[in-house]
Amino acid sequence: MDISQEALVKLITQKVIEKLNENEEILIPIGISNRHIHLCREDLNHLFGKGYELTKIKDLKQPGQFAADEVVTIKGPKGEFKKVRILGPLRDETQVEISISDGFKLGINPPIKESRKLDNTPGITIIGPKGSIEVKKGTIAALRHIHMTPETASKLNIRDKDEVSVEISGIRKAVLGNVLVRVSDKYTLEMHLDMDEANACLVKNGDLVKIVENR
Amino acid sequence: MDISQEALVKLITQKVIEKLNENEEILIPIGISNRHIHLCREDLNHLFGKGYELTKIKDLKQPGQFAADEVVTIKGPKGEFKKVRILGPLRDETQVEISISDGFKLGINPPIKESRKLDNTPGITIIGPKGSIEVKKGTIAALRHIHMTPETASKLNIRDKDEVSVEISGIRKAVLGNVLVRVSDKYTLEMHLDMDEANACLVKNGDLVKIVENR
Repeated sequence: MDISQEALVKLITQKVIEKLNENEEILIPIGISNRHIHLCREDLNHLFGKGYELTKIKDLKQPGQFAADEVVTIKGPKGEFKKVRILGPLRDETQVEISISDGFKLGINPPIKESRKLDNTPGITIIGPKGSIEVKKGTIAALRHIHMTPETASKLNIRDKDEVSVEISGIRKAVLGNVLVRVSDKYTLEMHLDMDEANACLVKNGDLVKIVENR
Repeated sequence: MDISQEALVKLITQKVIEKLNENEEILIPIGISNRHIHLCREDLNHLFGKGYELTKIKDLKQPGQFAADEVVTIKGPKGEFKKVRILGPLRDETQVEISISDGFKLGINPPIKESRKLDNTPGITIIGPKGSIEVKKGTIAALRHIHMTPETASKLNIRDKDEVSVEISGIRKAVLGNVLVRVSDKYTLEMHLDMDEANACLVKNGDLVKIVENR
């Protein structure tokens, strides 16, 4: 093998390694959340009747989570949304997730919050077929976040509750910061955005993004 | 002056220069566009009556541009928006600017386009007090952009039609790419975002952003 052949082999080897590294890159599918509600047992009783059970119509990507057939109306001082989907299973506390845009229509200013962190969040009126309730807190705009398995987290050198930046490509390309990572063996890899974020970046469900900074 | 004093003077000088450079940093105020419409003379005639003139109620930040008192309804196959503001002055072609979210409600999928670039854009129904029209094209979601004077462009080493990346700070911090810069001595420095983008980044009118990359 002469020098030029050796150089060629070296170049090909290098390209193959680069290609393998490319394939190692972990891409994260987007899941877009429209406005929705999680209910506690007591609130479900008030809205749908005592002992009522949610009817699962679709499994969500995160294991155990599902979209229910049941919907409610949510109402604020300036407006309302009908047919807001209930997600199951039931939780310890009722949580209403809306976008900032939704907040303008409702007349409620939702803080950007991690799920289940409901201290100092505004209340809202929820109307069901059997009654209506006024919850004192629980209205949030979800802090954008990634669900991740421990295996993926380990590959990316990321720990539970780390914040990362995520790159989205396309005509409305962006690098989104302050993306919370939650790691659990109960999760499936997925980045959750709300409708404002998805439309601002022109992404659809299942579009792939990548982490570009871990700080 | 001994060595340590000299080192101190050097350090202070350096810090002062850094501070001066910081102050030279050009910050760009955000202007948020809700859905709106620009009309041509012929379409204004159809909607409001022949020879009708728009009534200025507020000057916009860009010189010569104004919000009119007049509003119209815009209608797509799936829904409509009432009270959509007309912006003046009249243009050669009618242009309807909506967000991607608005598009879902209307049943129209607006392409991301630079203003006045209306080839291959969807039509829409526009309803005014004296008549309604169906325009064959002109519905867009505005490509995010910055209006800039030649003086500012020169300081930033940017030319008309350059694309830059812009950093937005805060809890929903982001670096937005593909931001078109338009340079003219008729402009005032301002970055235009639509409602989806503003809400996704949690910015308000007048919030300040900066260019972080010019490519």
